Amino acid sequence: MRVAVAIAPEVRELLRESPADVREFVEEIHDEDLADLMTMLEEDEAMILLEQLGADMAADVFERLDDKKQAELVERFGTERLGPIVSEMAPDELTDLVAELPDQVGDRLLETVHPDTAAEVEELLAWPEDSAGGLMTTEFLSVSPRFIVNEVIEHVRKQAADAETVYYVYGLDQDDKLLGVASLRDLILADGRTPFSEVMNERVINVAPETDQEEVSRTLRKYDLVALPVVDKNGKMLGVITVDDVMDVMVGEQTEDIQRLGAVEPMDHKYFDTSFWMMIRKRAPWLAVLFVGEFFTGTAMRAYDKVLEAVAQLAFYVPLLVSTGGNSGSQSASLIIRGLATGDITVRDWWRVLLRELGQGMVLGIFLASVGMGRVWMWGDGPRFIITVGITLVGVVLAGCTVGAMLPLLLRRIGLDPATSSTPFIATLIDVLGIMLYFTVARFALAELIAQHMPP
Amino acid sequence: MRVAVAIAPEVRELLRESPADVREFVEEIHDEDLADLMTMLEEDEAMILLEQLGADMAADVFERLDDKKQAELVERFGTERLGPIVSEMAPDELTDLVAELPDQVGDRLLETVHPDTAAEVEELLAWPEDSAGGLMTTEFLSVSPRFIVNEVIEHVRKQAADAETVYYVYGLDQDDKLLGVASLRDLILADGRTPFSEVMNERVINVAPETDQEEVSRTLRKYDLVALPVVDKNGKMLGVITVDDVMDVMVGEQTEDIQRLGAVEPMDHKYFDTSFWMMIRKRAPWLAVLFVGEFFTGTAMRAYDKVLEAVAQLAFYVPLLVSTGGNSGSQSASLIIRGLATGDITVRDWWRVLLRELGQGMVLGIFLASVGMGRVWMWGDGPRFIITVGITLVGVVLAGCTVGAMLPLLLRRIGLDPATSSTPFIATLIDVLGIMLYFTVARFALAELIAQHMPP
Repeated sequence: MRVAVAIAPEVRELLRESPADVREFVEEIHDEDLADLMTMLEEDEAMILLEQLGADMAADVFERLDDKKQAELVERFGTERLGPIVSEMAPDELTDLVAELPDQVGDRLLETVHPDTAAEVEELLAWPEDSAGGLMTTEFLSVSPRFIVNEVIEHVRKQAADAETVYYVYGLDQDDKLLGVASLRDLILADGRTPFSEVMNERVINVAPETDQEEVSRTLRKYDLVALPVVDKNGKMLGVITVDDVMDVMVGEQTEDIQRLGAVEPMDHKYFDTSFWMMIRKRAPWLAVLFVGEFFTGTAMRAYDKVLEAVAQLAFYVPLLVSTGGNSGSQSASLIIRGLATGDITVRDWWRVLLRELGQGMVLGIFLASVGMGRVWMWGDGPRFIITVGITLVGVVLAGCTVGAMLPLLLRRIGLDPATSSTPFIATLIDVLGIMLYFTVARFALAELIAQHMPP
Repeated sequence: MRVAVAIAPEVRELLRESPADVREFVEEIHDEDLADLMTMLEEDEAMILLEQLGADMAADVFERLDDKKQAELVERFGTERLGPIVSEMAPDELTDLVAELPDQVGDRLLETVHPDTAAEVEELLAWPEDSAGGLMTTEFLSVSPRFIVNEVIEHVRKQAADAETVYYVYGLDQDDKLLGVASLRDLILADGRTPFSEVMNERVINVAPETDQEEVSRTLRKYDLVALPVVDKNGKMLGVITVDDVMDVMVGEQTEDIQRLGAVEPMDHKYFDTSFWMMIRKRAPWLAVLFVGEFFTGTAMRAYDKVLEAVAQLAFYVPLLVSTGGNSGSQSASLIIRGLATGDITVRDWWRVLLRELGQGMVLGIFLASVGMGRVWMWGDGPRFIITVGITLVGVVLAGCTVGAMLPLLLRRIGLDPATSSTPFIATLIDVLGIMLYFTVARFALAELIAQHMPP
């Protein structure tokens, strides 16, 4: 934002006093900084700035605003003023904007753009937003493989202004079937008279339009690509996905994962851009579900009320024991959730994960039990308490590791996001389990003590 | 892995029976798939495969193995057999390998490569691994701005094989000061006789070598770049950071964040690649810290033992109340931690965050209190219990939101990773606070009941 903050006062003054000069002033500024600047201006000022930039440059800046801001401007200033700018947008960006707008406004907007573009947008709208089809743009460079390299370079020259990425040129046959790819580097290195078919690599890494965006991101990353073609089941090339869009996907997916792990329903906008009540709506349902889940801790404890009345000290250990189970569960869950997201772990590995977590739970449980038993001894609650706490600790840590590791795998198996098995969710499960285990162990280990204090 | 799995049997057979033919067989396979294949072969087979590929191609494959695997091969087969391959590696990749090796082995390895490369690696080793200097490579395309475009393209042709990225050409003066940048697209679009100085953009987005890798990743993402130059404080260009390395950084940082959030010390390797005891070492310390922290819940409850003995029912509500505080805290923490990571929130926003979270805590607290009071009423514990639970709930949710939101900001302020304020850590804090609040409220609201049951 530093650039935008620095130039904002002068831009505002120019917009007020001689708007025609503003274009020259901002010519050298990066589109991204101008987009930052747009968010700092009043909407009227922002609109005048866009108009002064000219449709071409304005579209580049407008594309970099977030979908919400774009939609606000369209709804406020109408399709007459924004139509010329919107017409210059890349089809994938335009598609995102239309998806954000109310249906009527979106339809009206599409009427202002070139019919070919409108048709492309309609096609792109058909794919789910989080699939390869929803991420791709239809603007890419393609040639017939019969062209020689010099002709291809000439073609790139002519088309480069329109295409989103010029780093790769795709060789297509007359039915748009993808035959090969060459990078601009390959073309520059090759002799100008070589046919494209000899320069291009025929093993093209590609994805289907239905591919999930996480898989798209993994593929592009694995092969260090700058763009990835989308090809349908007949081999026809539909579009390309560029690395900058994939990075946005990565950031978005990560935000979702972290919010889910914290038991928040993922939010579409930034922290300060989310309204107070929208945030309540994203938080309250999960809190309520977990709260109702925790009712069972009360129910479980009530089931042992006679034991508790007889030996009130038992209550002192409840938070310590249940939280320890929750903590070990959250460790396992975070390891498995991340492993699933990066592809290091798949659902089929479930038994290897189970074996390992049982082992981890055993070792960690015994370790914590020995520390915990020492503490009970220092509190002076006697040997039977020491045994009760020790056994319970091994049990809850074992339960925590197992539940924490298996739940994300189960969720993935049934098609849900593994991160939904949030840390609070696992903690709640283990709380109830832990209380039941604790009082069951206590009833045996402390039977004499309980009998002694029981009302006759 | 599918490609690697498919070709593995045939490659193995070739390696056994006619190793000289293996190169032709794998020629068209992507380096990344060959790297996958390497991990599936026995180490001896892998070494023979590398030697058959020839140093140039072998280096491309070898680079894509993870640092640990690379180091294993070097330690096993020695610098004599791996020297020629290692010499062809990009300096940044070689630097990572040397950093992974024991000092002696690394030094011996550097003796086998060209002195210039060794000097570059020594220079790169000086930067911290997670800084721009640690990420950059020193191989990039540069020209004097006085060249004309045709000369520049000729130069690109000659150098392209060595440079990691050919998408940008940097204009440097005789002291390597960065004057401007042009993309390959700009060069192809320009007339061949134009001087480079007229084609290049003089406002080059760049980072300093000390810049933290998270900031590097944000900058590259913000401006949709494929490579980002690293420039020292005198304006001298030191290297470039490419988008594929940044994506690896993003994945690594995300893994760290999620593991920290789950109270696990970040692991260097994948789940199944981490040894059982290494994993225990990453988990046990945090579990132990949290466990000892939870001792204070016991201490807090003991402070109110008379109250508990008088009204044993009070214990039934402890897990419900403290976990609800922890849950709201984990929501706030995950929102703030993510906001800090993406740059949407900065430490200076702390009072805006505080105000908002106080409001959120109030609304969510009142909402949950009304549900909770209904449940107490159904359990039939009477109006004084209803009031105690209601007040405590508002209090713990308010405390949860505030602590959960402020702790990550505080950690960032003092230079620690905000994700260290993991969900379990916040839950532990709130557990202790919640118990103290609960019994304090209970002592007032239930004073009569307590007095009635107190032993004289």
